Amino acid sequence: MTQLENALKKIISPEIESVAIAEKIDPRELARGIAEGKTVIPANINRKNRNLIGIGPSLRIKVNANIGTSPLNDSIDIEKIKTIAAYEAGADAVMDLSISGDLSSIRKELMSTTPLTFGTVPIYEIMAESHGSIDNISGDRMIGIIEQQAKEGVDFMTVHCGVTRRAIPHIDHRLMGVVSRGGSVIYKWMKHSGLENPYFERFDDVCDIALAYDVTLSLGDALRPGALADAGDDAQKSEISLMGECVKRARARGVQVMVEGPGHVPMNLLRDQVALMRRECFDAPLYLLGPLVTDRAAGHDHIAAAIGGAIAGFEGASFLCYVTPAEHLSLPDENDVRDGVIAARIAGHAADIGKGIPSAIEEDRDFSRMRRAFDWNGMFASAIDPRKSRAYRCRSTHKDESVCSMCGEFCAMKPEETI
Amino acid sequence: MTQLENALKKIISPEIESVAIAEKIDPRELARGIAEGKTVIPANINRKNRNLIGIGPSLRIKVNANIGTSPLNDSIDIEKIKTIAAYEAGADAVMDLSISGDLSSIRKELMSTTPLTFGTVPIYEIMAESHGSIDNISGDRMIGIIEQQAKEGVDFMTVHCGVTRRAIPHIDHRLMGVVSRGGSVIYKWMKHSGLENPYFERFDDVCDIALAYDVTLSLGDALRPGALADAGDDAQKSEISLMGECVKRARARGVQVMVEGPGHVPMNLLRDQVALMRRECFDAPLYLLGPLVTDRAAGHDHIAAAIGGAIAGFEGASFLCYVTPAEHLSLPDENDVRDGVIAARIAGHAADIGKGIPSAIEEDRDFSRMRRAFDWNGMFASAIDPRKSRAYRCRSTHKDESVCSMCGEFCAMKPEETI
Repeated sequence: MTQLENALKKIISPEIESVAIAEKIDPRELARGIAEGKTVIPANINRKNRNLIGIGPSLRIKVNANIGTSPLNDSIDIEKIKTIAAYEAGADAVMDLSISGDLSSIRKELMSTTPLTFGTVPIYEIMAESHGSIDNISGDRMIGIIEQQAKEGVDFMTVHCGVTRRAIPHIDHRLMGVVSRGGSVIYKWMKHSGLENPYFERFDDVCDIALAYDVTLSLGDALRPGALADAGDDAQKSEISLMGECVKRARARGVQVMVEGPGHVPMNLLRDQVALMRRECFDAPLYLLGPLVTDRAAGHDHIAAAIGGAIAGFEGASFLCYVTPAEHLSLPDENDVRDGVIAARIAGHAADIGKGIPSAIEEDRDFSRMRRAFDWNGMFASAIDPRKSRAYRCRSTHKDESVCSMCGEFCAMKPEETI
Repeated sequence: MTQLENALKKIISPEIESVAIAEKIDPRELARGIAEGKTVIPANINRKNRNLIGIGPSLRIKVNANIGTSPLNDSIDIEKIKTIAAYEAGADAVMDLSISGDLSSIRKELMSTTPLTFGTVPIYEIMAESHGSIDNISGDRMIGIIEQQAKEGVDFMTVHCGVTRRAIPHIDHRLMGVVSRGGSVIYKWMKHSGLENPYFERFDDVCDIALAYDVTLSLGDALRPGALADAGDDAQKSEISLMGECVKRARARGVQVMVEGPGHVPMNLLRDQVALMRRECFDAPLYLLGPLVTDRAAGHDHIAAAIGGAIAGFEGASFLCYVTPAEHLSLPDENDVRDGVIAARIAGHAADIGKGIPSAIEEDRDFSRMRRAFDWNGMFASAIDPRKSRAYRCRSTHKDESVCSMCGEFCAMKPEETI
């Protein structure tokens, strides 16, 4: 039984129990959210010893880190190091976006490296095995790869079911076209073959597989805007509407489902976009990339994404995919992974506080009490990034003083007798 | 005549003309904003060859970088390097917050180093010359130092006029007390002397000096919350209300004035706080520090501040003071200055786009057109941070390819015949 089926039958599974403890909420309340489809617990029945997480607007926001090989860098060792870095930096999930090397063994090795909830984008494997030719891609294989990865224990998978032939004419009006890597493969395949997207047409087959292994489906936004200028266009809106249909179909089958979102979105459209997605997708948990609030932050896209992610999280997004400083420019290295995870965690945490989640508010209160008491080690231990906060402190010239090197003896918080 | 006096008489001064050109708006429209007090042009009559900037909600958001010596680091050379770094990273203004060394000559040297609009916090010089004893501080000297710095050509000055004796009882209820460095000196001085804050009591004297040199007053928020838990408390609110009184008094004298704001503010209070400040301070330009949307981002406070700054800017703040990654931990170095400026610029730019400023929107559109065309050099030139975006691109293993090393040959934006 999937966690959704459990919840619908009011069964408190060990997974629901475990997530409720982590979130400090009543397991029956959690189960209610899962039964309504507002919350998911990605937990493939074939994967063991995984840190379980709940994803939903009433829970703490979760952070995903994308890792994976590229044609210009297909070392599994480097990806393992990045996977460990993501875990150390506090990510809740990793997605393996490898597109080069032996993808099945890379996936297995990464899954055994990390206890984090594990996701993939199955179309990437299709892309990698196509050797650059659209003719080598069949609809059957596109479905089959989902089953293969489900068997291997992948907890959640991105499936681009919302992009269909009816979107094709809209794309020409775009400044950036299709920027989703997986989405662009489906788009090009549809144009080339004249056929409909198998992930939409055979969505019931996709659900059958997801049901058998309790894979959480993450409905991918192939048509997410890749520039502020494309945000909220007809291509994006038609996809959201089809994703909403698929949410209903998946839920009706007992399949856990979440919905992915943009992309590049200007601040003035952000609240409305989140509201639209929630409404059109029947309050399925929103899994957002960014959103980036400017196109021009190359080298610092983690910051542009943190701004958009915090606002979207405050408005109800539940799961933030990190964006690293390397986005749009190069494959992230270990440090980029750390910076990306931390930026997304700051965004998520700020949104959690804004939403009024008690444990998030209390963490900041405790931290500030330690700051007031000059308890540096206490602060490092409970900072969002213990590593970097300690490193900054250590470079001070007077490490033994209670104060920091910014104001030194003129610290505003020193006792009142002194200036 | 001050720029406010010019604008009230419908005179288009060379300064107003120059800022109107930079902002691509009608100089009469700009003058109207200045006459209403919604916009300021900090431009001390004693300073020459300075890049003029306008600060107001209908203009592009401006960014300030704080630099300055500390007791643990009083090298003027390092501060000059940081001042240049701030300029190179695109700051619009610098504030010299030096508290160690020969402050007058440091100030003069920094002012001749940079063409940026230049600000100070005069109480810091009082603090530095007090040798740690409150008894050495007199009300007369607190006023006198403003005149001395005005003569030297400082464009804008933070004056903490909103903290008075009536705030003292509120402070005890705070988690973090008074965290403003300058504000804490005044607070301690009031408690120690039993006297009222000279900057409030003798605000007319302050205005006389500002009027004579056209110093723009920046009403300092001595009682800004230093923890989310203190945001929106009575201490902060009473100060905002007194700053509003001072705004009216300054404007009535023909003095340009802006208002500083928090500090640490949770996302759920941010919009209301900006609205409250705008209302209570009669739409004076808001100059915000952060706001930080979590207390726990030590080592990454530039990101927490970018989130708060973008939201506050979108709601109407006009001037963002950067926060560096070193905030709360150590004196920023040159790299921290760069990172702090860039993060604040990303926040300001995102807000400008959200507010609908045409030139900001057009910049992103142009940038994305270049991205679509794989015009890497064009992108670097018009990125918010040309330096770092180029560095990321350069570390790619295949520099000669049109694509980046993230997806390599699987780039989603390549022509449709290939995958």
